[in-house]
Amino acid sequence: MITQVPAGYTYGSTAPSPVSAEELAQLEASVLFTADDREALRTAGDVLEDQVEDVLDVWYGFVAANPHLVAYFSTPDGTVLNDYLGRVRGRFGQWILDTCRRPHDREWLSYAHEIGLRHTFEKKNKTDDAPSISHIPLRYMVAFIYPITATMRPFLAKKGHGEEDVERMHQAWFKAVTLQVILWLRPYSSDRW
Amino acid sequence: MITQVPAGYTYGSTAPSPVSAEELAQLEASVLFTADDREALRTAGDVLEDQVEDVLDVWYGFVAANPHLVAYFSTPDGTVLNDYLGRVRGRFGQWILDTCRRPHDREWLSYAHEIGLRHTFEKKNKTDDAPSISHIPLRYMVAFIYPITATMRPFLAKKGHGEEDVERMHQAWFKAVTLQVILWLRPYSSDRW
Repeated sequence: MITQVPAGYTYGSTAPSPVSAEELAQLEASVLFTADDREALRTAGDVLEDQVEDVLDVWYGFVAANPHLVAYFSTPDGTVLNDYLGRVRGRFGQWILDTCRRPHDREWLSYAHEIGLRHTFEKKNKTDDAPSISHIPLRYMVAFIYPITATMRPFLAKKGHGEEDVERMHQAWFKAVTLQVILWLRPYSSDRW
Repeated sequence: MITQVPAGYTYGSTAPSPVSAEELAQLEASVLFTADDREALRTAGDVLEDQVEDVLDVWYGFVAANPHLVAYFSTPDGTVLNDYLGRVRGRFGQWILDTCRRPHDREWLSYAHEIGLRHTFEKKNKTDDAPSISHIPLRYMVAFIYPITATMRPFLAKKGHGEEDVERMHQAWFKAVTLQVILWLRPYSSDRW
């Protein structure tokens, strides 16, 4: 059970998202996100709660194995910033549970926008005062959908749920990840988003 | 078997993509695309070859059921353009087989870039001389990953392959779709892609 608030986690106290309720509803329809997915994510939250660190180990292992990805947690001359990795890790773990448990309301939208901003020239590194590369390209934000979705399935299957329930949780997770990556991209393009 | 060249299909005769071989390799690594996926896609091509129209029926049904999506195949005042839908459909079917069969070489990269351009202010509607809305927002390009991936699985399972082979084809498809959506987004942002 995560009880500490992660460093730099400002859910509930960020600037409003420019994304409208109608735009969100249309995006949810576009990824086929329904009340059933909300329910499946709630179950997923209970399944994942004590596995968050294991999930993060897999994701951090993947990043560490790819020099072109670990670069975004390094100084421009290539020194890996372990403090920065550690602080982001706390928020990343919280994000897993927030994805499962937070309702898609204005606060959720605003924090999704804040997460997006923290990957761009506007805000990357600022939360953690990290001397790293100044933005993460859009292409890796989208690429992220694959590993973050595919690697989740074994964790969802670890608490004895039947194949059908695991699949339902996994599809809901895939939709929720895709939806959030889209919201994270809002700060990348004001006129084409 | 598709033998006709679809209207407006210009594979092999488009301007070069600005994406470098190194960028492509790093993207492939980011979505975990390997030689095994290439092989699984080749099998998927054989599985899907005579199901292309059925797949398109599902996708077109999904678009038709969502007014905010069918808008991009309509005039600005909401008249659905059936000719335009039909011409795009031919290329969309070809794209399914190209995704399975084309090597990821310069021609493939260039045509992915051309597909991206055809969704933006620069080139949307031009190929088909369609009086439709002038661009498709970035958010729907990414949202598309979910339905185009999830709806494919039953078709991959229809030719008697074992569960493991179907899963391998489906994961390769998911990776290939994500990778291509990323390439389609290149024209959306010259400085943040």
